[in-house]
Amino acid sequence: MIYLDNGATSYPKPDVVGDAVYDYIKNVGSNINRGGYAKAYSAAGVVLETREMISKMMNGYGSRYTIFTPGNTYSLNFLIKGLARKGDKILISGMEHNAVYRPAYQLEQEGLIEVGYMPCNERGELKLEEALAMIDESVRAVVMVHASNVSGTLMPIREVGQRCHEKNVLFFVDAAQTAGNVPIDMKACHIDGLSLPGHKSMLGPQGIGALLLNPAITGELTPIISGGTGSHSDMAEMPEELPDRFESGTMNLPGIFGLHASVGWLAEHQQEVHEHEQKLVKRMLDSIRDVEGIRIAGMPTEEGRVAVVSVDFLNGDNGMIAFQLEQEYGIMTRVGLHCAPLAHKSLGTFPEGTVRFSIGPFNTEEEIDTAIEAIRKYAQESNE
Amino acid sequence: MIYLDNGATSYPKPDVVGDAVYDYIKNVGSNINRGGYAKAYSAAGVVLETREMISKMMNGYGSRYTIFTPGNTYSLNFLIKGLARKGDKILISGMEHNAVYRPAYQLEQEGLIEVGYMPCNERGELKLEEALAMIDESVRAVVMVHASNVSGTLMPIREVGQRCHEKNVLFFVDAAQTAGNVPIDMKACHIDGLSLPGHKSMLGPQGIGALLLNPAITGELTPIISGGTGSHSDMAEMPEELPDRFESGTMNLPGIFGLHASVGWLAEHQQEVHEHEQKLVKRMLDSIRDVEGIRIAGMPTEEGRVAVVSVDFLNGDNGMIAFQLEQEYGIMTRVGLHCAPLAHKSLGTFPEGTVRFSIGPFNTEEEIDTAIEAIRKYAQESNE
Repeated sequence: MIYLDNGATSYPKPDVVGDAVYDYIKNVGSNINRGGYAKAYSAAGVVLETREMISKMMNGYGSRYTIFTPGNTYSLNFLIKGLARKGDKILISGMEHNAVYRPAYQLEQEGLIEVGYMPCNERGELKLEEALAMIDESVRAVVMVHASNVSGTLMPIREVGQRCHEKNVLFFVDAAQTAGNVPIDMKACHIDGLSLPGHKSMLGPQGIGALLLNPAITGELTPIISGGTGSHSDMAEMPEELPDRFESGTMNLPGIFGLHASVGWLAEHQQEVHEHEQKLVKRMLDSIRDVEGIRIAGMPTEEGRVAVVSVDFLNGDNGMIAFQLEQEYGIMTRVGLHCAPLAHKSLGTFPEGTVRFSIGPFNTEEEIDTAIEAIRKYAQESNE
Repeated sequence: MIYLDNGATSYPKPDVVGDAVYDYIKNVGSNINRGGYAKAYSAAGVVLETREMISKMMNGYGSRYTIFTPGNTYSLNFLIKGLARKGDKILISGMEHNAVYRPAYQLEQEGLIEVGYMPCNERGELKLEEALAMIDESVRAVVMVHASNVSGTLMPIREVGQRCHEKNVLFFVDAAQTAGNVPIDMKACHIDGLSLPGHKSMLGPQGIGALLLNPAITGELTPIISGGTGSHSDMAEMPEELPDRFESGTMNLPGIFGLHASVGWLAEHQQEVHEHEQKLVKRMLDSIRDVEGIRIAGMPTEEGRVAVVSVDFLNGDNGMIAFQLEQEYGIMTRVGLHCAPLAHKSLGTFPEGTVRFSIGPFNTEEEIDTAIEAIRKYAQESNE
């Protein structure tokens, strides 16, 4: 069995992740911010430390501004819906996932905001000049993915952030496919809101994500979810205090303990993982670039991308080939639109979609070679 | 160490819970609805089975109408904020947790809805006649807790549900303190939306909850969170299809696997656990009812309540006593307002709060006896 669906969720996780989650459930168990006993404080210490580690990793604004959420989609909804005021104009790119597209579209359909689309080319790159020209004082916020979950193409967050900064426009980045792998510098890129999932390149469990905020913008966000925070319990209003304001209800503590372990693991291995994945994606691209009957959606080399490779079998049925990949080779991929119709439209692979091979830290050269062999075989068979 | 904070989160969990979570992280790992390979289907099978088991437990409307959420607070926000339309009037009780009170208050402050309060007495009971008289055709929805997290008092969901049904008013129940312990019959009680946490009496891990819906009302709920669902990915709108419409983003699969295990465990033990907890709460109440210098907030006997006992030390400092309980006896409780200022106001314990002892399935008679001894001692000391 060869797992090449790391873009959906990374697997396997470093051993410490499952161990930490298990240890929490078996041996810690208690809630935080709610109990006054020692165990609750010690769990709170792990939570605080996890915030600090993530903030440091992203050059964020510290633990108070590192909010735990149930996942990246929640983080993005907290940003987009939390911000939206009547008459706002927001820009998104042509490579967005439905986690950005659907909330933005929903608010537009409700008559609340106007959504503009920054165009992208067939390699998944932002058409930078056109995009920058769209970012002016009439725009309230730009929401952009850091790397496409379809093609792996990296977006120019530094340039867009700089432009947003100059034009006093808020800048939100969806780091679903990069956080934990590609270095991110919130401050240097003028990122006001950074959303990330815990379970992809961060290598933690599903069900936990984070939202890192620029302190300057927290007053502009309404909490989408409200409830008990264990703080200021006498108040009917949500507390102003962060991170509490955006963390109602009991948090996913097993998830945070798992993330604590994976972030600790990444502190020692991130660079090595990044290089390993880049090496594997280069190996794969170099070997399939000239295969007849396929098209690689996105960047042709390992430059400017993460280790996500989308293949369109031009003469075959992508769905059938994905099925055969598993049946004959034990290769697990993801076929279709990857919850990103906008991206597939930009890449020219809508509505048929692609077969996506997404590489993780524990994939080997042998596994990639098997995938290459399989791609060649199915391309040849479908060309006949 | 004696854990009596099960109202915050149950601990320990049945052994199968940690085992199932660990097994998922280590040996399954894959996402669902996103991959077409066998492992993804088998994980999907566990998810589906968990929905079916929960729906059956609550006499709900089946797996499609059993939505997984990140927790009870999310479930309640999905209901309250998902429903709210300009001009709506909703009623909540005087025993609500901030998970109901804060969302309702927030919508009222935004000028969207009007909130009415159904009164409760000092034992935490709904003043039924007054409450029923408030439920008329002008009300869109009633949101009510099933049992108070402060006093344990059970609310008359059958009577209120019947009245709502007759007046064509929607009825939402917050089963935070009862789901998995006290039998709930959604259909018999005319419950249109039932929210529950996975980690309290359901005995699963934190970070997972459920929202059970009456199919007749799903069209009235707007998804608060939108994004990728792995279904209808070509659409900019959220799919109409349930449960997808309310389940954007990668789900907490380790959490669901843990909940699957705990619900399976409860299928064999729920009645026994309920009786065990009732026996222990009776033992505790019988022994402290006449202790001088304390007041039990809520029902004086084990009738009409769950195993949550709130004690107000009339002549002492509740916070200090909670601290001493842990220091001297290793007893973990929760002191203060328990995120429920409304309830404490009804009970007459606002703003000083109470020391809450909440009993779980694995507490023993000896532990309860130690708690009784400690309560007697601190009451006597503070009376002196």
